Amino acid sequence: MLMSVEDVTAFLAKEYPQLAESGDFVLDELSDMGAKLRMRYNQRHLRPGGTISGPSMFTLADVGLYCAILGELGPVAMAVTTNLNINFLRMPGQRDLVAECRLLKLGKRLAVGEATLVQPGEGGKTQIVAHATATYSIPPR
Amino acid sequence: MLMSVEDVTAFLAKEYPQLAESGDFVLDELSDMGAKLRMRYNQRHLRPGGTISGPSMFTLADVGLYCAILGELGPVAMAVTTNLNINFLRMPGQRDLVAECRLLKLGKRLAVGEATLVQPGEGGKTQIVAHATATYSIPPR
Amino acid sequence: MLMSVEDVTAFLAKEYPQLAESGDFVLDELSDMGAKLRMRYNQRHLRPGGTISGPSMFTLADVGLYCAILGELGPVAMAVTTNLNINFLRMPGQRDLVAECRLLKLGKRLAVGEATLVQPGEGGKTQIVAHATATYSIPPR
Amino acid sequence: MLMSVEDVTAFLAKEYPQLAESGDFVLDELSDMGAKLRMRYNQRHLRPGGTISGPSMFTLADVGLYCAILGELGPVAMAVTTNLNINFLRMPGQRDLVAECRLLKLGKRLAVGEATLVQPGEGGKTQIVAHATATYSIPPR
Repeated sequence: MLMSVEDVTAFLAKEYPQLAESGDFVLDELSDMGAKLRMRYNQRHLRPGGTISGPSMFTLADVGLYCAILGELGPVAMAVTTNLNINFLRMPGQRDLVAECRLLKLGKRLAVGEATLVQPGEGGKTQIVAHATATYSIPPR
Repeated sequence: MLMSVEDVTAFLAKEYPQLAESGDFVLDELSDMGAKLRMRYNQRHLRPGGTISGPSMFTLADVGLYCAILGELGPVAMAVTTNLNINFLRMPGQRDLVAECRLLKLGKRLAVGEATLVQPGEGGKTQIVAHATATYSIPPR
Repeated sequence: MLMSVEDVTAFLAKEYPQLAESGDFVLDELSDMGAKLRMRYNQRHLRPGGTISGPSMFTLADVGLYCAILGELGPVAMAVTTNLNINFLRMPGQRDLVAECRLLKLGKRLAVGEATLVQPGEGGKTQIVAHATATYSIPPR
Repeated sequence: MLMSVEDVTAFLAKEYPQLAESGDFVLDELSDMGAKLRMRYNQRHLRPGGTISGPSMFTLADVGLYCAILGELGPVAMAVTTNLNINFLRMPGQRDLVAECRLLKLGKRLAVGEATLVQPGEGGKTQIVAHATATYSIPPR
């Protein structure tokens, strides 16, 4: 890895001030080809019925995978999302939501990864709330 | 169609107050199995580089298709997005973005549709900025 | 367009002999950023229940979009499918199936297109049986 | 689980004779919400360049997830694929390909799963060749 959790957090704060200012997104972990990004529970992510909105889950998966790419490639590369496919599996509860992200491929031109969005369920059991796969175009270096 | 543009607009204002209060989303048209939803250009949808954010485009496609379903089924049905696949094709410009939505299937249990996100390009030529397909689960009636 | 229907048909016969030898796939039309590929009805594409198999529909969409790219770029480029998303909408009947293909983007590195798989339905009305979007990586030239 | 590896293998042989007769697909394992399906290396799955064809990989992912559903629900349910999204990540080598399948959701009406297609790579290291997610509609029981 070329960047640490602190490096990526600082990079995002500079490049995506709206995201960072909200204080809702916290990078919990960076690992080899992976990242865990947490979305703190906040009224602003709700939609009718008290559930977390689809666009908020989209953002969590997309930014989480972007962090995993940054960790591997460093701050030079400005990867652009070209495709994102998301399956919404269960109604999320009103608590933190974590994107467990894993890069499946990190090529010269394309990166592909999957993000599993999980929450602790009833009785502490982890539940999968949504699952996304996404492709990023990596600019020539 | 069971609902008019005015009916659907009023329904959304009641059910999705955050969306409606922003004033950014305007239902331009409802047709047989289709809808056109406009997102007015607004600073708040920007991301670094001055381009419209992915989550904003996700929302536009998702809500546009939801409007098309509402128009056909009426306000009783609370359709839930189960899958959304979006391809980002071109950097959008800083102007209105319109989702041209078309239902490909409207079954008893599932509805599937596509949303083509377009903008006028250089010289007035319409450009496709993004394209999404989505599936909605329709509750038993 | 750089290639005609005859050019693309001859190219496929050379590059994909298995496909061509079956005689099942017929390129009906090439147009600006588009193609129509027909799969002749044949026992071999069936699966239990007498319906056309998913892999056959996958092939029809994928090859149809590949023809549209060939028509635009010529035989030099060896485009590779990187992503394909397909929605199966209705049970197809036991007759020809046509992929109406349209390129949404033809960039230097990536091409993205959609394929609508249609069949004449009861009373001659065209029915959408499946819908796919796919991305192709275009090698540097 | 309601069915064993032998049960599912026998069920497939009866319901999908074409698949079974080829002898190319072998169910290696059934587990809680999961299955491993192997496609034996065979000339017939090749496409130009000596690589395994996209439709063969589509079939492997689709049938593998179908086996995982069968294992959980038993032979009564005739699940139908409604959506399949596949990312092709690396050129597969000329050897067996295994779909490691996992159900992410098994609801009353819909099942969603992911299939990771792997091959041993250079030096025995496992490589991810493709990754798919798919949705199945489960008929009312």
